[in-house]
Amino acid sequence: MTALSINAERLLGRLRDLGQIGRDGDGRLIRLAGSDADKAGPDAFVAWTRAAGLEVDVDRIGNIFGIWKTAENADDAPVLLGSHIDTVINAGIYDGCYGVLSGLEVIETLKASAYSPARPIAVAAFTNEEGVRYAPDMMGSLVYAGGLPVEEALATVGTDGTILGVELERIGYAGSKEPGFLKPHVYVELHIEQGPVLEREGVPIGAVENLQGISWQRVTIEGEANHAGTTPMSMRRDAGHAAARVVTFLRDRARNANTPTVVTVGTMNFEPNAINVIPSRATFTVDLRDPDEQRLHAEEAALAAYLKGLAADEEVTISVERLARFEPVTFDNKIVELVEEAARKCGLASKRMTSGAGHDAQMIARIAPSAMIFVPSIGGISHNPREHTSDADLVAGANILLNIVSRLAA
Amino acid sequence: MTALSINAERLLGRLRDLGQIGRDGDGRLIRLAGSDADKAGPDAFVAWTRAAGLEVDVDRIGNIFGIWKTAENADDAPVLLGSHIDTVINAGIYDGCYGVLSGLEVIETLKASAYSPARPIAVAAFTNEEGVRYAPDMMGSLVYAGGLPVEEALATVGTDGTILGVELERIGYAGSKEPGFLKPHVYVELHIEQGPVLEREGVPIGAVENLQGISWQRVTIEGEANHAGTTPMSMRRDAGHAAARVVTFLRDRARNANTPTVVTVGTMNFEPNAINVIPSRATFTVDLRDPDEQRLHAEEAALAAYLKGLAADEEVTISVERLARFEPVTFDNKIVELVEEAARKCGLASKRMTSGAGHDAQMIARIAPSAMIFVPSIGGISHNPREHTSDADLVAGANILLNIVSRLAA
Repeated sequence: MTALSINAERLLGRLRDLGQIGRDGDGRLIRLAGSDADKAGPDAFVAWTRAAGLEVDVDRIGNIFGIWKTAENADDAPVLLGSHIDTVINAGIYDGCYGVLSGLEVIETLKASAYSPARPIAVAAFTNEEGVRYAPDMMGSLVYAGGLPVEEALATVGTDGTILGVELERIGYAGSKEPGFLKPHVYVELHIEQGPVLEREGVPIGAVENLQGISWQRVTIEGEANHAGTTPMSMRRDAGHAAARVVTFLRDRARNANTPTVVTVGTMNFEPNAINVIPSRATFTVDLRDPDEQRLHAEEAALAAYLKGLAADEEVTISVERLARFEPVTFDNKIVELVEEAARKCGLASKRMTSGAGHDAQMIARIAPSAMIFVPSIGGISHNPREHTSDADLVAGANILLNIVSRLAA
Repeated sequence: MTALSINAERLLGRLRDLGQIGRDGDGRLIRLAGSDADKAGPDAFVAWTRAAGLEVDVDRIGNIFGIWKTAENADDAPVLLGSHIDTVINAGIYDGCYGVLSGLEVIETLKASAYSPARPIAVAAFTNEEGVRYAPDMMGSLVYAGGLPVEEALATVGTDGTILGVELERIGYAGSKEPGFLKPHVYVELHIEQGPVLEREGVPIGAVENLQGISWQRVTIEGEANHAGTTPMSMRRDAGHAAARVVTFLRDRARNANTPTVVTVGTMNFEPNAINVIPSRATFTVDLRDPDEQRLHAEEAALAAYLKGLAADEEVTISVERLARFEPVTFDNKIVELVEEAARKCGLASKRMTSGAGHDAQMIARIAPSAMIFVPSIGGISHNPREHTSDADLVAGANILLNIVSRLAA
């Protein structure tokens, strides 16, 4: 099977074609879940899937499946590939689409070859992964994995006041299959990294072994507003300075630890935010991520302890609100090893890594052994029209997927 | 003379009366320069001044002078007292008014006694000290000291589109005297501290020996926006973190130095200010104050050097914009010593201190030996209806003023 390779021209051509569907008047790519553009994108995918001779099924939440099964393997659990084809506003053309179209490409390549799969191979396009119009994100795969009742998901009201179920009916993607109808044997998702690591290290293949847990908290520090000129340093209760201490504490701690922990203070607001008034209040968010649940817990505890000491030290009052919390996901080590092995066989360097972003794979991992393959994102840029991966890396990633699928379905 | 003391009831009564002039429908005290309320306030002051038998003069910028001179001393330079009676929006009743009414009270007390002054004694109410409606603040005293041409000041367009000169004509306070017509022998300004030091230390009299220089700068740090999950700590160019380092650097430096330097980062803005995006830009202001010009320079230089190192260290771009810069003012040491001596004689503790806020005295110091006397502000609160000083402290301050004026005019 190692001699087999995907049709690079066909894959890249479809990626470009799909990337032209859903452009607005300013040329921005926008295919929000349930929109007209989110009909046109799937329509193209379904047409390619049918042309490849695959059976197409759609479930009630709009997840689309292209299935290659034979009389001999029809009763077996399939090897499932996939990702999503909905996009953010002003998106790039690779996020999600690359995984879906590569899944189709791999199946089409195997189907045209002498390969005889022991089990079905299917490709899924999951609904509303981005969550821009309807929350939560990764909704289609979450429903599919049983994490959210389909009725509840269909009743979701969008940012524009629309109801997802009504929109899916309207665009013709309210299918009849019950979510979960196709229980995967394994699930593999090929995706662009959306981060800078592979490109910086010159490694073309990421063998994604886990996905970060996420802890989002909002911290509010209350001090005392006072005149910037007449209040001696020793008499200040400066909420802004206390907030700055938290930022440097978190950053120093994460940088000095030899762990994959990442921490970001992305928002910061001072009150009254006046040049000559000591800030009475500082509000900021802490985005803390770690692939290890115990360590994520420990990092949260370290922050809590620091805030306690800080409140006493700076004579400020500190309150913390939890905004979101997701446990890390560990992918299936056997599949991760297959990815590494496939890369070696193809003469490509690979690197075990953590996904810093959320993906459908984290939902499907609840019901089947799962893993992901990453390819480099130039400059780590994503959710942006400048999102880019070289053709060579795109083709290499799809060939790795081909290689491991041929083994997983054997 | 030490047996002489001011009429506490008269002073406190006038303070309360003046504090009722210029209340809006919500009970807020607002006497912006050139407004109807800024006619009513001065009208009351002028009436009290005339009733005390003083000559009243008004100069072209609206500064009002109540002058006690005799046939014998009319040609000598006066001892000038004063402050302002315009206010901020929703002001307290003490800021400025206390100094003006105490000046009048001191003159009235001396005039009614057997005291025979060797030189005239005058009290000034300077125009537009607050600068709320017309910039810059301390305008009347600045013009009086020759720091701003009177024509230019009169042409100032207010925040409401009005012209100061037109408004002064309208309210009847466009006088005929040339600003500076009365060249002071010395100038003394009694004022509430507007800071917490005297109250916290339990000291009733501040002998103000200087006034801080002010350096205002806006710092902009440019890093790189990136995904909070997919970007390892070592690959970040986090503008928010770099800004936080500046805040802690400045605060630690000022706290660890045994100097009166105060530094405040009062404003802070992150971009894009999103929970899961590394800040690409942080903009903040630095309010740096010191009574010593060399040290203020050294602090500015230390910040510049720190920013240079930080830019390299964090791989960020830093730009600095100067917003304002005023040199410190050193008051006349002989007058400051007189204040300390007077406090001792009255059995009151005093403390040499720095003014953290701007005052008319800093302008008049350009043309005459000047100093200030502070009394405690409860909670350090000012520019606020909760501004308060105890009656005992108000009376004590006025008696100190009485004491030193009797010596300065002797």
